[in-house]
Amino acid sequence: MLVETKDYPINELRQCLENKDSDGIGRLVNDMHAADVGRVLTALDAEEAVELFKYLEPDPASQVLLEVDERLRKTLIASISSSELIEVVEEMETDDATDIISELPVEDARRLLDGIEKADSIELEKLLVYPEDTAGGKMQAELVAVTEDTTVEKTIEEVRRKAQDIENISNVFVVDSARRLKGIVSLDKLILASPATRIIEIADIDPLKVSADMDQEEVAKIFQKYDLVTMPVIDKDGRLAGRITVDDVVDVIEEEIFEDFYKMAGLHLEARVLDPPLRSIGMRLPWLLINLATAFLAASVVRLFQDTIQQFVILAVLMPIVAGMGGNAATQTITIVVRGLALGELLPKNAARLIFKEALVGLANGFITGCAASIIAYILGANVMIGLLLFLAMTANLIIAGLSGSVIPLLLRWRKIDPAISSSIFVTTCTDVGGFFTFLGLATVFIKTGIL
Amino acid sequence: MLVETKDYPINELRQCLENKDSDGIGRLVNDMHAADVGRVLTALDAEEAVELFKYLEPDPASQVLLEVDERLRKTLIASISSSELIEVVEEMETDDATDIISELPVEDARRLLDGIEKADSIELEKLLVYPEDTAGGKMQAELVAVTEDTTVEKTIEEVRRKAQDIENISNVFVVDSARRLKGIVSLDKLILASPATRIIEIADIDPLKVSADMDQEEVAKIFQKYDLVTMPVIDKDGRLAGRITVDDVVDVIEEEIFEDFYKMAGLHLEARVLDPPLRSIGMRLPWLLINLATAFLAASVVRLFQDTIQQFVILAVLMPIVAGMGGNAATQTITIVVRGLALGELLPKNAARLIFKEALVGLANGFITGCAASIIAYILGANVMIGLLLFLAMTANLIIAGLSGSVIPLLLRWRKIDPAISSSIFVTTCTDVGGFFTFLGLATVFIKTGIL
Repeated sequence: MLVETKDYPINELRQCLENKDSDGIGRLVNDMHAADVGRVLTALDAEEAVELFKYLEPDPASQVLLEVDERLRKTLIASISSSELIEVVEEMETDDATDIISELPVEDARRLLDGIEKADSIELEKLLVYPEDTAGGKMQAELVAVTEDTTVEKTIEEVRRKAQDIENISNVFVVDSARRLKGIVSLDKLILASPATRIIEIADIDPLKVSADMDQEEVAKIFQKYDLVTMPVIDKDGRLAGRITVDDVVDVIEEEIFEDFYKMAGLHLEARVLDPPLRSIGMRLPWLLINLATAFLAASVVRLFQDTIQQFVILAVLMPIVAGMGGNAATQTITIVVRGLALGELLPKNAARLIFKEALVGLANGFITGCAASIIAYILGANVMIGLLLFLAMTANLIIAGLSGSVIPLLLRWRKIDPAISSSIFVTTCTDVGGFFTFLGLATVFIKTGIL
Repeated sequence: MLVETKDYPINELRQCLENKDSDGIGRLVNDMHAADVGRVLTALDAEEAVELFKYLEPDPASQVLLEVDERLRKTLIASISSSELIEVVEEMETDDATDIISELPVEDARRLLDGIEKADSIELEKLLVYPEDTAGGKMQAELVAVTEDTTVEKTIEEVRRKAQDIENISNVFVVDSARRLKGIVSLDKLILASPATRIIEIADIDPLKVSADMDQEEVAKIFQKYDLVTMPVIDKDGRLAGRITVDDVVDVIEEEIFEDFYKMAGLHLEARVLDPPLRSIGMRLPWLLINLATAFLAASVVRLFQDTIQQFVILAVLMPIVAGMGGNAATQTITIVVRGLALGELLPKNAARLIFKEALVGLANGFITGCAASIIAYILGANVMIGLLLFLAMTANLIIAGLSGSVIPLLLRWRKIDPAISSSIFVTTCTDVGGFFTFLGLATVFIKTGIL
């Protein structure tokens, strides 16, 4: 199937649901990938989604459940009986099943674990021990492991046996009698080897592995750095506990990046576009209150110059321009620096070069936008000296923006404080205070010296 | 090897480089993964990096070249002879080789293609036709393909033959005599099947595939949506042209997210923390000039109320607080909405709910921060009525922030304009104009009615 952007047959599905036309629904849904069915359910109203979900067999249903957001998933799970839920969970891979179970209320989770096959539930309970955001929480227990002395022939037999139940076997793990990881063999190497060879002889010895308690962000960085497709996970006793595949960490990589920018806007990573209002209010308020404090700090600078403003009210008209442009330039610098720090492109050896460069960029762009601003102000009827003032203050404030936008994130990183979360507060305080102070301060000097 | 956060032996390496101690360098570097050697080269000064690079054999050198940024890569390539470069490129997979070649000046690229083996250069020239940011530019030509009637036994032989040259064979592609894609067989299925079976019988028929000219962003979204590890690419005649693996698109996924936030700060995606100053100045200036225009728009609102400010200069002190808090709240709303749109979580059916919610959040947080602000202003000596004014204007402006921060990105998306790039300009203009207008306008009304 050639993947193209396409529309989902939402209206046809609505029609079929209304007519209870199960054949029609089957025709529309059966060929769809679970990810697409997930999108369709999300696009429908909740009652329609519940209705459509009832028509799905346990196998597609289990995949579809993983493709919708947590809110809709809860609605769908609540709509089916506990025996149906057991069937659905039994179709899942262990890592997905544990994710679903850990979202359930404790009592429901208990009932579910009691309901499913003994062997499966023991596996699941082992995995449920690990917090969701660790390597252990992301890994699946399904894998093929053989001991060092197994022949290639026997290993292939083991793969055949396991392939009935496990999807995407891309590697065989080689362990010792205590299940300590000794090596990895990819399937193409396995096919390549002669049947009588001992598996350890063709294995990649001492492969990259992580411990089950490693944070998922670290795990994602390792996958990205080493371009991995799969990685073994070991428990605290050094025994092979599971494997993580790259599709499980792609979403973590995505979350990681969002997190930095969320922090810059004072948002909690969990914040979602359709959160209930009370939750949003509570999550955004602290940041706004901190900003209120810094806004008063900037206002107190303006207050110092009340007499100056009284003499030339035009200063009050133009001062937000100076502060605002500094804020814009600073946001550009912070965004670049935070990304550079996150990607590891910005190293200590380059700090001085960065700061100098950002000051230079601030000087140049301050000069140009300052010129433009003073010309516009003059055209709009301001005095030439006010224009000069605007030009000088904007140039100065964009240099302040470049300096503070680069120095502050670096200082925070150096003090082991996350640069994303606090940089924008400190830096915009610098550009607000700097903008008001240079503009109104210079104006006061101009007045005292008789220039204005 | 258990992956842990670790420090690189930079100082020891410097020592060895100084002493030209090639054994020492070998001891330090040989066990390192290419990605780690890349980090080490990046951490060293350019001359040291060139020096160290000379000690690497063609095989690690080719991998390491792919792990450093473009600037350092150019330096390293310039430091070796063209025959050494040919050796290095011959070690690479075709997709990596084309990336390197397309970075070279045309003449050097020509010389390189003439220098490498005929068969390889024909392959490479075919791939070089595709722009770097398309499926064709990301794919590699190395793959195992067999025709429909091939037996499982013969297919395994083909995998064995190819496995000498190709890394990570995870699938076999089934094609017809015109090389049109008919199916895919994963290696575990291949191992599972009996030797005499026709390959097409165990193939996954009509698998997901993309055309070579599809944009890399689309490709990345498909990988993410369907949790793919590998995907075939077909040329414009429908023939199998190559395969893309997930590690090639992880970086694209990352870029995609950065892009949205970069656009919100008016940055070009190509902008990097250590760009030369002139490049940074030019890339950031247009955005600053657009913001300057909107800043003058907001200033012209203040200008309408010059007389009011003349009477109560305290208004000039407090007005940046009203505008600034609106801007902060609006940034929170935009960030959430842009992410929701990017992830597809925000659907047309939810638009009204979102707008209502954001207005409500604005009302609540405006009420709370407005109360806080008026109390602080009162404590700092402002008149009670000025405090009331501040409270009313902040509440109004945070509602404006919530409304404009949600409506504007949705309108832009609806008009097929990228919501990330222009939202923040429009929205902060709304909160600046709205903040000044409500605060100073209400003050004028208060004065006219004798309240103030």
